[in-house]
Amino acid sequence: MNAVEIIKRKRNGGKLSKEEINFFISKHLEGKITDYQVSAFLMAVHFKGMDDEETLHLTELMLNSGEIIDLSFIKGAKVDKHSTGGVGDKTSLILSPQISLLGIYVPMISGRGLGHTGGTLDKLESIKGFNINKNIQQYKDTLAKIGCVMIGQTDTVAPADKKFYALRDVTATVDSIPLITSSILSKKLAEGAEALVFDVKMGSGANLQDEDESRELAKKLVSVSKKFGKKAIAILTDMHEPLGYKIGNWLEVEECIEVMKGAQVPDLIKINNVLAGAMIFLGDKAKSIDEGEKIADELLASGKVYDKFLEMVEEHEGSVDYVEDYKSLKRAKFSRIISAEKTGFINKLDAYGFGLANVELGGGRKKADDKIDYLSGIILEKKCGDEVVKGDAICEVFAEDEDKFIKSLELINNSIEINEKNTSKKNLIIDIID
Amino acid sequence: MNAVEIIKRKRNGGKLSKEEINFFISKHLEGKITDYQVSAFLMAVHFKGMDDEETLHLTELMLNSGEIIDLSFIKGAKVDKHSTGGVGDKTSLILSPQISLLGIYVPMISGRGLGHTGGTLDKLESIKGFNINKNIQQYKDTLAKIGCVMIGQTDTVAPADKKFYALRDVTATVDSIPLITSSILSKKLAEGAEALVFDVKMGSGANLQDEDESRELAKKLVSVSKKFGKKAIAILTDMHEPLGYKIGNWLEVEECIEVMKGAQVPDLIKINNVLAGAMIFLGDKAKSIDEGEKIADELLASGKVYDKFLEMVEEHEGSVDYVEDYKSLKRAKFSRIISAEKTGFINKLDAYGFGLANVELGGGRKKADDKIDYLSGIILEKKCGDEVVKGDAICEVFAEDEDKFIKSLELINNSIEINEKNTSKKNLIIDIID
Repeated sequence: MNAVEIIKRKRNGGKLSKEEINFFISKHLEGKITDYQVSAFLMAVHFKGMDDEETLHLTELMLNSGEIIDLSFIKGAKVDKHSTGGVGDKTSLILSPQISLLGIYVPMISGRGLGHTGGTLDKLESIKGFNINKNIQQYKDTLAKIGCVMIGQTDTVAPADKKFYALRDVTATVDSIPLITSSILSKKLAEGAEALVFDVKMGSGANLQDEDESRELAKKLVSVSKKFGKKAIAILTDMHEPLGYKIGNWLEVEECIEVMKGAQVPDLIKINNVLAGAMIFLGDKAKSIDEGEKIADELLASGKVYDKFLEMVEEHEGSVDYVEDYKSLKRAKFSRIISAEKTGFINKLDAYGFGLANVELGGGRKKADDKIDYLSGIILEKKCGDEVVKGDAICEVFAEDEDKFIKSLELINNSIEINEKNTSKKNLIIDIID
Repeated sequence: MNAVEIIKRKRNGGKLSKEEINFFISKHLEGKITDYQVSAFLMAVHFKGMDDEETLHLTELMLNSGEIIDLSFIKGAKVDKHSTGGVGDKTSLILSPQISLLGIYVPMISGRGLGHTGGTLDKLESIKGFNINKNIQQYKDTLAKIGCVMIGQTDTVAPADKKFYALRDVTATVDSIPLITSSILSKKLAEGAEALVFDVKMGSGANLQDEDESRELAKKLVSVSKKFGKKAIAILTDMHEPLGYKIGNWLEVEECIEVMKGAQVPDLIKINNVLAGAMIFLGDKAKSIDEGEKIADELLASGKVYDKFLEMVEEHEGSVDYVEDYKSLKRAKFSRIISAEKTGFINKLDAYGFGLANVELGGGRKKADDKIDYLSGIILEKKCGDEVVKGDAICEVFAEDEDKFIKSLELINNSIEINEKNTSKKNLIIDIID
């Protein structure tokens, strides 16, 4: 067995055995197979793919390269959700407290913003004092105590994935279905959950722009998770326009607070509660996703989710006063309203463009060490399908300095489309794969 | 412009501009683009190819990374031949003296054996004393003096190709048409020839096993050469069975001597003289390849080619006595005759199998620093289409030690096929591309 033969077999579309994948990855981690051989291999995988078994073996090796958290001391279902990333995608903040109210534990290790998509950790850190750096013992303790916990990835989880991801990032091999699958699962499987719900985004604001690829990713996440003995459901959801009305770190927390306190944000609530329904179903507290969704609707309407959220903020050393004071409308220094240039129907609010604009505004990072402006972002006044009269406000843009502000304007203007006829179609839940 | 974008564009099947290829290669040579980015790029090229323009730019950069030999001081046509490699492929040894007899200069820089295919330099070095390590000045002087010269690649020619080839070799990206083309041409264009004839082998013993790929390579070699302002013809020739009767370094020199002295080896003479015809045509000493072939036939029959060959051997410090003594039949220690296992027609003498057997016998290398046994090899007693009676000798095998000898036997036996009917078809010259 040698590296060149393994690369060649994959390049020619062959299937690799567990032994070959094991040899290739473990020799790489030992430094005996070079980075340039791995990157040729990754490019071959990009073109020729990997079947479920190969993806399982790859994931297993990445998973076993680090710590796997044992939550068996907690007697109760442990269910987590993972989103492939979107714009205005803030459901984790609602789902965690919501699901834990039912006695289902939600062990959640999240990521930071990546490219045009936001990250849960950045949103949480917009809450004064919120500490996402709990160690594994604190993670376990908090979960056992309040039923939910939200931290960042530790260095001990799937270090091989970190090494691989760094290489993929600089060799144009990020958007490969089996590589994405093994990267997501090697981290998610280390968390200790026994059931996983995947929110796989489709549309311009998703990380995979091609809809067939998103569907393929959804299938692979579910099938490979099942090979690991996990219960799994993937929900394909719309990401053509931003989710909800608010984009930006604190702005998204604010919108979640409002929703938990009864505000009506139809697309956000629908997607949130279908995901919740799937989590409740997998946690054995409902007989179907539909039944789970009804339970989720009732919970959200009850106001209890907000109380649980405050409890979670407190457990993470976050300022409850800061959250409770949300009505004071914390905003960045500069703001401007973008108005409709003509009368008609809004047929497009391009999620990708709004996501990029949010990065320019300071709400995301271009380089890993960029500083985030937590109060910057965008508030939509309209959504797709809404009628507007020329001059109506479509959105309001916020930034800490004028320069960032100016850089975002073209991106936003190019993302808005108004037509005479209403051609926008809403299809929030595209498919459910289990 | 950055490395990831360039890799991504090629990965997605896009065409790279001269500036992008220039940026990528030159930054790599400066050490600013890493080996792992280059290997991902090479794998993307393997899958998505490069058109003639991209291949031209890549070749140009490799060529310009080293010394380009100026032969303009020689007034006269300068024509070279390059073979993509085969088994028993020994035409360079005849062509060089043959063509130079017409006042056409043949500046030839050759390679060593690679895999199952032999190398001109190894054959030449089987002649006692033959020095293939002339420096560039000596190369020029010899060419000007006698009209032909045969040396090995120097470190100063296309060093970028050497770097690239080393990376391709360990990342399963060797057999890519544009990469092969740029590798061959960056070296051939540095030699100083103004016209090139390519002998592109097709069949089991060729380096590209797929016939369509060989044809594509032939086309690319010609079209890219023309973009460099060179005259070029590619001849697609048969490599299903070994060329001629003898395989092995000295054995092949011996067969060339015999042919130059009048022996009839039909396939070798046909392919040699068609290649010669193309060289003579490109060197303006004939109005067509056909006319050139007739001139080549006459020259070979005249006995003058052998005299010129001896002159070349002497100019390279080779022992003329050693050559002249060829009738003493220099042979390796061990030999065995392989006989027909049944009566019928020989329908297959698999060139690839015989090539691998020759490597096992000591006639080729498995690692770059393996020592060659110059007298080992195989002499065919029969060729495809010949009738045999059970027990007739098919070939004789030679090795310096019994161990090597035994290792080759299965390879040889598996390469011979005898059937009741004669189904072998001879089609030595498959196509001519100009």
